Amino acid sequence: MKQSKTLIPTLKETPADADIASHKWLLRAGYIRQNASGVYSFLPLGKRVLQKIEAIIREEMAKVSANEILMPALQSADLWKESGRWDKMGPELMRLNDRHEREFVLGATHEEVVTSMIRDEVKSYKKLPLTLYQIQTKFRDERRPRFGLLRGREFIMKDAYSFHESFESLDESYQDMFQAYTNVFTRLGLNFRPVIADSGAIGGKGTHEFMALSDVGEDTIAFSDSSNYAANVEMAAVLDQYPASNEEPKELTKVSTPNQKNMQEVADFFGHSLDEGIKALLFHVDDRYILTVTRGDHEVNEIKLKNLCEAESVELATEAESKEIIGAGFGSLGPIGTPEKVEVMADHAVKYLVNATCGANEDGFHYTNVNPERDFPNTKYADIRFIQEGDLSPDGEGKIKFAKGIEVGQVFKLGKLYAEKLGADFLNDQGKATTMVMGCYGIGVSRTLASIVEQYHDDNGITWPKQVAPFQVHLLVLNSKKEDQTLLADAIYKKLLAEGIEVLYDDRAERAGVKFADSDLIGIPQRITVGKRASEGFVECKVRETGEQTECHESEVISYLKKLLN
Amino acid sequence: MKQSKTLIPTLKETPADADIASHKWLLRAGYIRQNASGVYSFLPLGKRVLQKIEAIIREEMAKVSANEILMPALQSADLWKESGRWDKMGPELMRLNDRHEREFVLGATHEEVVTSMIRDEVKSYKKLPLTLYQIQTKFRDERRPRFGLLRGREFIMKDAYSFHESFESLDESYQDMFQAYTNVFTRLGLNFRPVIADSGAIGGKGTHEFMALSDVGEDTIAFSDSSNYAANVEMAAVLDQYPASNEEPKELTKVSTPNQKNMQEVADFFGHSLDEGIKALLFHVDDRYILTVTRGDHEVNEIKLKNLCEAESVELATEAESKEIIGAGFGSLGPIGTPEKVEVMADHAVKYLVNATCGANEDGFHYTNVNPERDFPNTKYADIRFIQEGDLSPDGEGKIKFAKGIEVGQVFKLGKLYAEKLGADFLNDQGKATTMVMGCYGIGVSRTLASIVEQYHDDNGITWPKQVAPFQVHLLVLNSKKEDQTLLADAIYKKLLAEGIEVLYDDRAERAGVKFADSDLIGIPQRITVGKRASEGFVECKVRETGEQTECHESEVISYLKKLLN
Repeated sequence: MKQSKTLIPTLKETPADADIASHKWLLRAGYIRQNASGVYSFLPLGKRVLQKIEAIIREEMAKVSANEILMPALQSADLWKESGRWDKMGPELMRLNDRHEREFVLGATHEEVVTSMIRDEVKSYKKLPLTLYQIQTKFRDERRPRFGLLRGREFIMKDAYSFHESFESLDESYQDMFQAYTNVFTRLGLNFRPVIADSGAIGGKGTHEFMALSDVGEDTIAFSDSSNYAANVEMAAVLDQYPASNEEPKELTKVSTPNQKNMQEVADFFGHSLDEGIKALLFHVDDRYILTVTRGDHEVNEIKLKNLCEAESVELATEAESKEIIGAGFGSLGPIGTPEKVEVMADHAVKYLVNATCGANEDGFHYTNVNPERDFPNTKYADIRFIQEGDLSPDGEGKIKFAKGIEVGQVFKLGKLYAEKLGADFLNDQGKATTMVMGCYGIGVSRTLASIVEQYHDDNGITWPKQVAPFQVHLLVLNSKKEDQTLLADAIYKKLLAEGIEVLYDDRAERAGVKFADSDLIGIPQRITVGKRASEGFVECKVRETGEQTECHESEVISYLKKLLN
Repeated sequence: MKQSKTLIPTLKETPADADIASHKWLLRAGYIRQNASGVYSFLPLGKRVLQKIEAIIREEMAKVSANEILMPALQSADLWKESGRWDKMGPELMRLNDRHEREFVLGATHEEVVTSMIRDEVKSYKKLPLTLYQIQTKFRDERRPRFGLLRGREFIMKDAYSFHESFESLDESYQDMFQAYTNVFTRLGLNFRPVIADSGAIGGKGTHEFMALSDVGEDTIAFSDSSNYAANVEMAAVLDQYPASNEEPKELTKVSTPNQKNMQEVADFFGHSLDEGIKALLFHVDDRYILTVTRGDHEVNEIKLKNLCEAESVELATEAESKEIIGAGFGSLGPIGTPEKVEVMADHAVKYLVNATCGANEDGFHYTNVNPERDFPNTKYADIRFIQEGDLSPDGEGKIKFAKGIEVGQVFKLGKLYAEKLGADFLNDQGKATTMVMGCYGIGVSRTLASIVEQYHDDNGITWPKQVAPFQVHLLVLNSKKEDQTLLADAIYKKLLAEGIEVLYDDRAERAGVKFADSDLIGIPQRITVGKRASEGFVECKVRETGEQTECHESEVISYLKKLLN
């Protein structure tokens, strides 16, 4: 494509609101433009990268026999009321009325639409399993759209849905899709991890998120430094393995601590480290009160608590509740002598403490020389804390490290949730009406594009991996007024096209400096510059990512490029 | 693709609301399903055909250096207020508010968005001309969605926009795009005509519509039986060429016609044919009154009247106005002795009348022996009537015939309309700020798909042209319980895949009759059936469109197909 005939509006300055690399470079290199808050246009280069990503997704979907369809953005509100999400999704769900005042939703996802279609079309086990997917524009009215394509209000998703006669069949498709997603993100060149994620809220039976590693990610991943293990930090199990102490238990002693409210103050007062204290927090879990007990240097993980209690909601109690129910404020809570209606749930790490300190359930007092088995026996122990860097990996291999990640994909065992709500039944091989089992799977296509840029850029612009680059070769003619240069550049352009090599040809009447700067911004993997030595037939070849430069005779350009591009 | 793993929900019966062929066959053959009134899902086969159409469009767009982009569906209402279409479009425009109560529009087209982007990005004549296009979902809240994909509320369009420094440059791009559209519809196998259309309302400078010929079309095309001439019936010019009469003018006579109100009654009363009467109608044209005068067998074309008067609105006056202004009701209007404030505008054909009849502008009276030049001289003559079948073609070659057409595409010289409203200026080569000149171009992608089915079907289903067929070959195994059949069919399936031939393999455990019926419905061009003679290596080959059948040895299947498919 000739650069003079397309629209690549590069910017010298970074727009004020572009606070992360992908947003900045995609704007500056002319890939996208914002039309409204969280709403973007893909300009020619951006659209080409999208198509590259989509083509890779389509190939991997075909391998797992997923069928591409296209469902509408406009969805009848009735379906969302049937599923219950009309109320649940709140203002994130974009709603509108048609001219007859019928309520519609702009699709945020398509579980309702696809389930209602399959309910009507698939009546027999013979037609299962079935996997459908689409690549389509989605709408979600984010409270605070930000980070360019990472958190927009209109974005492109690949969403897939599978339908099964049994959970075993779902497990197979889930595994296939897990592999397909792994292939997609690997082929895209992303540094990513599939991580164990929380499926609690939607009521599914298992889920992994695919996380592109990036400092701007909003999620924290706990991963092993020596195995494949990775999980969202909320989901990482903590092993019940702590060193045993050989200290002798001392006598339990109540001590006045009038000014010691938090763990650090208590530790300083007693002259020990944080991990010798016991932290107690009072939670309201559905209609129960639970006092969690963790080591002073650990944090309670409310998601673990919620899943453990199979609860709908987990909230910290107020200090007033604490005083009323236990008789002490937050600063003096502890597991010794709690009233019967408060259930004590302790983290495994607490078991291993010897001569620790904890609140005395009396304002202004703490116990010291606390020994759990002796001083609060019959306590329930469980894994209720957040994993920390340096902890053992839950698979027993290596230690945990943290990284930030951008969620680019998710595979999810939905189970029967939507099928039950929408009445998606089929006749099984015994002729009995049975509820379908479903899986759903998503890739944030536009978000993936941005994530690639987060991982592939330098100080001068984007450094696309070749499989997603908008073009393979950027051909520059340095001085378009010199005939020897334009003749040679035109000839090379034609040769590249004839060879089927995707080439962007900067034929503009711009200064050399502008062309070089734009080329670095745009980030096409290979650059061929036709300049001063054109009359001798020599051009300059440069690899965008490494900066490696060589001179090359025009007769060798094709073979040089083919070597690098294959 | 194996049919057992995809979703092709064929129907034995035609759904009640499917009143045209494309709607019926696309539903029955499992290509689409309705999700809400005027809102459809494309199932796997439908999506494949869409992609074929889109690929052809993309190739032709690349040839005219049009750049693909992707603009958002969510558009700020502010832009539509700037252009004036917020008010003009009425309830057809779908509107919604975001969580902050900001007003948005769901894109019906993208003139506003693209013009506002180009206004911001293109400041110099050096970057013009520029053509951008997208293939995208559009929304229009039709009052009465009908005919399946032909008139939906959510549909797929290819919309293109070109930006120019001059009208001459626009003319060039218009011509390129006209050719590209001609190529697209030709390659799609459509029987179509580019027709001269009306650009009045949007204020452009010229436009053609691409009409797929079809009896279910909502537009009437006037075309020459011996040249390329074709126009929307509203736009077809009528030549000022009528046979001269050699009858002698007789004396004007006023006759009482108490019961003769319409042209037929008057003709019967005077014992002449309709074309010897003169019809007069009173119009309100902006703030003027115009009495149109046509031959009794002709119809006034209000669009011609409007364009001729450069008027905003043309409306028939009420009978009360007629009585007040002319002093007679509708049944007795005529061009003789009209009050001064009423302008008389006569069609060319009237000039040639001799001894005709017309209303006397007095209730219950007509004139007979009317001779225009003598009885209402100084009258303005113009082409103000609808063309009729049998009229001379406006290009002088052949006679006019009518056909019905479905509008599948339009090319349009927008001129400066949007650029002026949205302030899209650039600096010309003299450094002067100048308003851009624009063109816009659309193809109804989903509507085109339906139009192809309107032209390619028979009593058993669809008969796709190969270039848009969802697959090239439909491979059937008649009895999937017989090992010789499945082994041979599996082997042929693998061979076809290896040869890169798109094949749908009906491997289902269904009866032969069901498979044949489904295959006819689906309409893939070539069918290969593995049946009774499988053990000898023989299969049956059938051409869907012609029904031509041959037996073929499996070793020859590939060469047989390649011959037909190339």
